[in-house]
Amino acid sequence: MTANRIYNFNAGPAALPEVVLEELQASFLNYGNSGMSIIEISHRSSWFEEIIDDALGRTRRLLNIGDDFKVLFLQGGASLQFAMVPMNLLAADRSADYVDTGTWSTKAVKEAQTLGKTVNVVASSADRSYAYIPRDIAFHPDAAYVHITSNNTIKGTQWSRFPDTGNVPIISDMSSDIMSRAFDPAPFGVIYAGAQKNIGPAGVCMVIIREDMLQRVPESLPSMLKYTTYAAKNSLYNTPPVFAVYTVQLVLKWLEETVGGLDAMEALNRKKAGRLYGCLDTTGFYRATADADSRSLMNVTFRLTNEDLEKQFVEQAQVNGLGGLKGHRSVGGCRASIYNASTLEAVDALVSFMEEFERKHG
Amino acid sequence: MTANRIYNFNAGPAALPEVVLEELQASFLNYGNSGMSIIEISHRSSWFEEIIDDALGRTRRLLNIGDDFKVLFLQGGASLQFAMVPMNLLAADRSADYVDTGTWSTKAVKEAQTLGKTVNVVASSADRSYAYIPRDIAFHPDAAYVHITSNNTIKGTQWSRFPDTGNVPIISDMSSDIMSRAFDPAPFGVIYAGAQKNIGPAGVCMVIIREDMLQRVPESLPSMLKYTTYAAKNSLYNTPPVFAVYTVQLVLKWLEETVGGLDAMEALNRKKAGRLYGCLDTTGFYRATADADSRSLMNVTFRLTNEDLEKQFVEQAQVNGLGGLKGHRSVGGCRASIYNASTLEAVDALVSFMEEFERKHG
Repeated sequence: MTANRIYNFNAGPAALPEVVLEELQASFLNYGNSGMSIIEISHRSSWFEEIIDDALGRTRRLLNIGDDFKVLFLQGGASLQFAMVPMNLLAADRSADYVDTGTWSTKAVKEAQTLGKTVNVVASSADRSYAYIPRDIAFHPDAAYVHITSNNTIKGTQWSRFPDTGNVPIISDMSSDIMSRAFDPAPFGVIYAGAQKNIGPAGVCMVIIREDMLQRVPESLPSMLKYTTYAAKNSLYNTPPVFAVYTVQLVLKWLEETVGGLDAMEALNRKKAGRLYGCLDTTGFYRATADADSRSLMNVTFRLTNEDLEKQFVEQAQVNGLGGLKGHRSVGGCRASIYNASTLEAVDALVSFMEEFERKHG
Repeated sequence: MTANRIYNFNAGPAALPEVVLEELQASFLNYGNSGMSIIEISHRSSWFEEIIDDALGRTRRLLNIGDDFKVLFLQGGASLQFAMVPMNLLAADRSADYVDTGTWSTKAVKEAQTLGKTVNVVASSADRSYAYIPRDIAFHPDAAYVHITSNNTIKGTQWSRFPDTGNVPIISDMSSDIMSRAFDPAPFGVIYAGAQKNIGPAGVCMVIIREDMLQRVPESLPSMLKYTTYAAKNSLYNTPPVFAVYTVQLVLKWLEETVGGLDAMEALNRKKAGRLYGCLDTTGFYRATADADSRSLMNVTFRLTNEDLEKQFVEQAQVNGLGGLKGHRSVGGCRASIYNASTLEAVDALVSFMEEFERKHG
């Protein structure tokens, strides 16, 4: 950890690789010898063309996706995708299956319903405060798509394997675990991810969409709400969020060239999460909130024996240079978000602090 | 001009105040002693709360707007507003008046029509390649709103005075001249502006909306496409583009504290544009494309005697440290965009270059 920097466990916006931050800073007044800041260059310039094309190429290689997928950069975050997915891909005479695994899934359902679309919530873990990922789900074979949230930041759960939906395309909100592990992209019709957890800053959303899904898009939608607009113009129909796309490019470069790809990233993420859950499981002082088989490798949610102690825990951690450990305001408790850029060193520092805090207060 | 920096005449993203860029760079690894980069802090933190509240306060003071207006930060640029304005504010049984002053106005009309709304194009300058701003327009007194584009980046025209629309609220796309001059906000129902020309980087759009307009917003819209969502949550319904909002805050601080407000800014902008138009008008070598009474103070569009010479002009200017002078690809020619952050020094350097280029090639 560089002097004056903290270990950042925020849920998003979140820690980014320090080498990326340093590169952003160093070139900030003069990007690529252009004589302009990265936030002053034209999105129609060859400088930005190289940035976006490099980011797209790295995305394809890292996720091992072929030419049958388009990779797009949009604005509005995953929250806008909750509406764009049904607007673009769910015709009035069809229905879609949604799996409800907590806050963000629930919002995705609500937005589709607001649009008057037919939604079947085919499984939910609401019965036990979303502490688990539902199994053995009976999907409708004629559904337009199956929507899931691959990782649930607030509840600390994650799909360890993706469900078998037969021929029905899966659409997944991967905002909080994209690029954290390798997976087979074939069953997916759309993958979308707000960048601000694993791949960049707030202000850009990556949408990976299979060609056959683009054929469903109705012509009657406004330009900015149609996936086909972005696909036809390489995400340059209007001015894209240049700085955010550039930062994503640098994070993907770090993932590919420094980390060594998604298998290596996953191994490190498993090690980090393993140490934290190991610490939680060897004591009655801390209690992990998610079922063991549904635990997230990205957001480790836990409780202490009472709320007063949790408050002390978060405050003293901050004093010790460990930030962002407060649980989401809707559920309380504690949460350590350990996305890709969170280091093993940071996790070890947290585990040491947790052990010491238990010795003092246990 | 700092070493290795150019004079940047890009139309947007565009030049930003050098002191703002330097402040962004200096604090990039550790914002406000948080131990985190500005792109790593939580949007729910007190750090960001201070940023957004300061930006809103400065906007109110600079534009002299009262509590009857809400100031919002959205994503998707002005292009998304072309759709959101009619979705939110134009009921099925009403019609709206649009003035067509070129590309961006035309797109605004098209998006409203795509939504099936009733649009009256009450005036257009298409007859003379949009070289002027229409005058003496007969607006419909029962229109839901009048939509105008206050400054036209591509055609180089600008409304010098806003039209009298009686009791009908004006909705203006001010992307390319917001904060460049003082004006009376009273007749406006909505002002929207992509930040990337006068007030910040690409990736955030400012929307200033009068309370009575919010009452028109239908409940049935998706959350992210309703102005009321942003108004109710101080633009924090979902994760906002933190870095872009922060940069806007710093630009507004510079406008208020260093420049001294919009009257001072306008005086400087008039001086800059005056020198450039002065240069264009004293020669037959260059020709300003906009009618004299409709000329933009922000985008000075001009032609040389032939396209080959225009190409040479743009290339040699670039070699001499003057960037971004190529006209929009849809109209050709040359364009010097001289937004707020463009300095008198930059304009003088351009005028000198133009005089020298004319001596060599005239």
